[in-house]
Amino acid sequence: MMEPLLDCSPLEGGSGTMRDKVAACCSFSTLKAWLPILGWLPKYQLTWLRMDLIAGITVGLTTVPQALAYAEVAGLPVQYGLYSAFMGGFIYCIFGTSKDVTLGPTAIMSLLCAFYIGNDPVYAVLLTFLSGIIQTSMALLSLGSLLDFISYPVIKGFTCAAAITIGFGQIKNLLGLQNISQQFFLEVYDTFHRLPEARVPDAVLGLLCLSALVTLTLMKSSLGPGPDDLPVHVRGARGLVWALSTVRNALVVICATGLSYSFEVTGQHVFTITGHTAAGLPSFQAPPFSETTPNGTVITFRELAQDLGDGLIVIPLMGLLESIAIAKAFASQNNYRINGNQELFAIGLTNILGSFVSAYPVTGSFGRTAVNSQTGVCTPAGGIITSVIVLLSLAFLMPLFYYIPKASLAAVIICAVTPMFDYHVVAKFWRVKKLDLLPFLVTFLLSFWQVQYGIVAGVAVSGCLLLYHVARPQLKVRDHGVLVVELDSGLRFPAMQYLSQTLFTKALMGECHLSATSKDNLRPSVYDVVIPWSCVPVSPPRSVVLDCCHVSGVDYTVVNELRDLLRQFQQRGEVLVFTGLSHSVLQDLLKAELPDFEHMESVEAGLQAVSGKTFHDCHG
Amino acid sequence: MMEPLLDCSPLEGGSGTMRDKVAACCSFSTLKAWLPILGWLPKYQLTWLRMDLIAGITVGLTTVPQALAYAEVAGLPVQYGLYSAFMGGFIYCIFGTSKDVTLGPTAIMSLLCAFYIGNDPVYAVLLTFLSGIIQTSMALLSLGSLLDFISYPVIKGFTCAAAITIGFGQIKNLLGLQNISQQFFLEVYDTFHRLPEARVPDAVLGLLCLSALVTLTLMKSSLGPGPDDLPVHVRGARGLVWALSTVRNALVVICATGLSYSFEVTGQHVFTITGHTAAGLPSFQAPPFSETTPNGTVITFRELAQDLGDGLIVIPLMGLLESIAIAKAFASQNNYRINGNQELFAIGLTNILGSFVSAYPVTGSFGRTAVNSQTGVCTPAGGIITSVIVLLSLAFLMPLFYYIPKASLAAVIICAVTPMFDYHVVAKFWRVKKLDLLPFLVTFLLSFWQVQYGIVAGVAVSGCLLLYHVARPQLKVRDHGVLVVELDSGLRFPAMQYLSQTLFTKALMGECHLSATSKDNLRPSVYDVVIPWSCVPVSPPRSVVLDCCHVSGVDYTVVNELRDLLRQFQQRGEVLVFTGLSHSVLQDLLKAELPDFEHMESVEAGLQAVSGKTFHDCHG
Repeated sequence: MMEPLLDCSPLEGGSGTMRDKVAACCSFSTLKAWLPILGWLPKYQLTWLRMDLIAGITVGLTTVPQALAYAEVAGLPVQYGLYSAFMGGFIYCIFGTSKDVTLGPTAIMSLLCAFYIGNDPVYAVLLTFLSGIIQTSMALLSLGSLLDFISYPVIKGFTCAAAITIGFGQIKNLLGLQNISQQFFLEVYDTFHRLPEARVPDAVLGLLCLSALVTLTLMKSSLGPGPDDLPVHVRGARGLVWALSTVRNALVVICATGLSYSFEVTGQHVFTITGHTAAGLPSFQAPPFSETTPNGTVITFRELAQDLGDGLIVIPLMGLLESIAIAKAFASQNNYRINGNQELFAIGLTNILGSFVSAYPVTGSFGRTAVNSQTGVCTPAGGIITSVIVLLSLAFLMPLFYYIPKASLAAVIICAVTPMFDYHVVAKFWRVKKLDLLPFLVTFLLSFWQVQYGIVAGVAVSGCLLLYHVARPQLKVRDHGVLVVELDSGLRFPAMQYLSQTLFTKALMGECHLSATSKDNLRPSVYDVVIPWSCVPVSPPRSVVLDCCHVSGVDYTVVNELRDLLRQFQQRGEVLVFTGLSHSVLQDLLKAELPDFEHMESVEAGLQAVSGKTFHDCHG
Repeated sequence: MMEPLLDCSPLEGGSGTMRDKVAACCSFSTLKAWLPILGWLPKYQLTWLRMDLIAGITVGLTTVPQALAYAEVAGLPVQYGLYSAFMGGFIYCIFGTSKDVTLGPTAIMSLLCAFYIGNDPVYAVLLTFLSGIIQTSMALLSLGSLLDFISYPVIKGFTCAAAITIGFGQIKNLLGLQNISQQFFLEVYDTFHRLPEARVPDAVLGLLCLSALVTLTLMKSSLGPGPDDLPVHVRGARGLVWALSTVRNALVVICATGLSYSFEVTGQHVFTITGHTAAGLPSFQAPPFSETTPNGTVITFRELAQDLGDGLIVIPLMGLLESIAIAKAFASQNNYRINGNQELFAIGLTNILGSFVSAYPVTGSFGRTAVNSQTGVCTPAGGIITSVIVLLSLAFLMPLFYYIPKASLAAVIICAVTPMFDYHVVAKFWRVKKLDLLPFLVTFLLSFWQVQYGIVAGVAVSGCLLLYHVARPQLKVRDHGVLVVELDSGLRFPAMQYLSQTLFTKALMGECHLSATSKDNLRPSVYDVVIPWSCVPVSPPRSVVLDCCHVSGVDYTVVNELRDLLRQFQQRGEVLVFTGLSHSVLQDLLKAELPDFEHMESVEAGLQAVSGKTFHDCHG
């Protein structure tokens, strides 16, 4: 979004007193922040309308076949895909901060939902409603920044794994195989095991659709921007290729359905087809808060929510993650900036209202957003056109959807998820930062078990790496007679024991060995402390200059341990001098009134102070 | 411990080839690292024996009454306290790396165990065995450093809360109150509500014991080190006071038991007494791996372990935490260094073997370790003396323990836990680092619900504060025409979005407003990207010098976002120059082959490069 949520810059108000200005901007500007449509609608131009119309129709023709196909992935009747595909356009148009993002059913979301809803639309719709509530609440609490903790390797790991899982899951539909297990590894086994049972017509149609889609995709990518001075007929041909390849999903599904229809009306059941679907628009009704099973048992809201379990965390977060990642990518490509929290608010609202029209959880779709952006959409109004096309399909085309061959939908999905499998990324991690392969691989491999487990494990691994860096800062030790120890990063409580142990070993103990203590240490009186349990340092103890110029803050644990460390240096007649402390850290240490605390501006001054023993006069 | 676990320093071997030296040190030195007794026993001196004997006996006289009392806290028959108190001395003598630490039942551990074992010794002994296995495994995997993530405020928070919980829990025994609830808040209510029902003899005895203990403690603390030239009778008097106050627990319990005995033998049941206990030494037998309930049902090992639940994490970790904290404190005070992993190994082994003599989980006891240190113990051999005293009590004194008044044990516990309630710490946090009050208070308050919940919540809060610092580094922005942005600490993936957003807003967008784009942006062809959705910057875009001298490392997420950021600067004709990168970070960024990447040694060079636009010749 262009404006921060509470943009009170005086630029917005006109003339008048400061109070007026603040009042003015805190009303309209705040409203505009929550309703970005107020920012662009008043400036809407007719040239934009043409572009929005073209983009809206193109995306609509991609949305309808994808929505039907993804409903299959989610384990729901196909019409639920369309139920989920139109609310986003209306809501996002009002609340969205990106011109490109298209909300609706997506491959990964469908895969995740399939796990939690167990083919039951009641669970799907309730999950949508609750996810919406959670996302909206997160937006109101500005919790969108939690996504900062999902690193790039984790995102890539689960996207690659999901692409394989989803893509491979469609092989059975592409080949017309029956009785294939749902669990990925069993699915792979079953698919290969039952390969001889493939239905030939399905397989032929599926592979034909797949080749058509691949060919059109390749044609589009080889098109490139032409010079401006092409003759009219060349430009027309280029335009045609572009148009055909852009609506390729619709084209392929329509052709396949036509073929299937012509067989079916002559009584020949050649292809595995979608079959009966509910016709017409969904009714607008409150989401179900209880369910009555066929044998009359009533499942209460509490039980439904318990069954959804951690889906109530995974689905809202993944919806948020996917949508924001896409919005950011296209905002960056098209040179604008989105507002993460407002995006979250828009998704949440779409899900809440979507649950009233029997939608399953939606998020931003990468493929359709790319189509939208490439077709040159100008404002989110394009989404309204897309939604209208979906609604028209629901109202008038549902009887025809009966004839859609499942193999053609499978081909659409396989082509949609293939680009998600970005294997180049492994080489990039290897070249730039090998350690990042660890969270990537953990996420990737565990995602085949369950995508959500993969993500959780990946976040945990990258969190551990993060904490390891905090707990084990690199210490550069230089020997100038006096030891100069430089901390390469911050100093927080998990690092303190490590620092203290290192200083103690390097400066005070060296490599030392337990010794019988000399007799004069053993005081005769039993009520005094005696120290026979000590060690003979290999080298004499040395003073230390601790260069803290990279330390940006300390906590009480650090202060407490430093006090102890200073005492130990003092006991051995050596000193520990701090250098390069920032103002705030120095203040914290002075407030702690550490005994024998010395601070110098630079390492040189510190060394001088130690060697000349002149530092006793310049405390603080 | 004095030696690192794999100390292969050539100092250890004699003459001979390098290979011989390595072979020699990797056998005996490694063995000595695992068996620290080999380090000190060969050097054992007779003078040490005298000190160890005195200390061992003194600690033994404290251990016996405390062990009996803490068993009460753990909800077990009193003899279990003694069963738990002798194994530590033998094991720690062989494997321990501190001369002072005394392992045995402690107040906090007893409180924690009470929650998990539900007054059933079978659960207690199994918990000991499993905790020992977990602790030993952790030691072998060098996981002791996990404790680094428990910060000082969290430790103080739970210690203070535990002191109040344990101390207040003994008021009912001190006053002879009956039917008091276990849950802390109900306990407080019940105790005050039933105050009029207090048994007068118990209350009188309890308060007498308490005043005796307090008086003796005060006498000891006011004793101080006297001058060396005192006359013999003054020194004798001082020695007597010191001895009496050191064995005050035993003294008070013996006197109270004598009083109670004299009443009981005359048939008068005046005090609430301990009652029947199992006599004699515990049998040496494998810990129970199943339990048969009175009605004949067999509870399997699996069920027992499930019932223990998160106790299998809490008890080993808290045991470790308490013991290491104590070992470190006394090592620091007495000028030696312990080895955390070896300490963990010693506790784990003590628990494993303890479970064969029906012990409940043990750890280092602060109070008894302090007595040990103050009495001038020279080696861990003192622990053997202590253990022998406990064994002798078990063998011969158990019939007398029947008569110990519960009020006297309550007084012992109250006096033992009072110093743990360190309320000064709040003022210290307030003065030095107010933010550290948050984890302290969270831990403190939640610990009244359950100590383990308090600790978990406290660790979580301090972890969140830590991650917040990582995710939101301070950015110092200075305006030299060109913006100079200085990162105050490391740059890891959670901080990257924040940095990128800040740079974008400050340098490229300013406060900007959505605009109708000028027509020339709108290309006529539909298959080219158009960008009408952009904003008019209030101020013109500016170049940035990013001072990374505090950045110690980057990950792939950072590199990836920097690539995007560089592209955005380049699109607007501005530059983003990095300065002060360390060698390793620079290498990582060069490996990533970022387009338009510029690096300068210093901010001045960076500024010059930007303003003179001379930087195009000095890539990398």
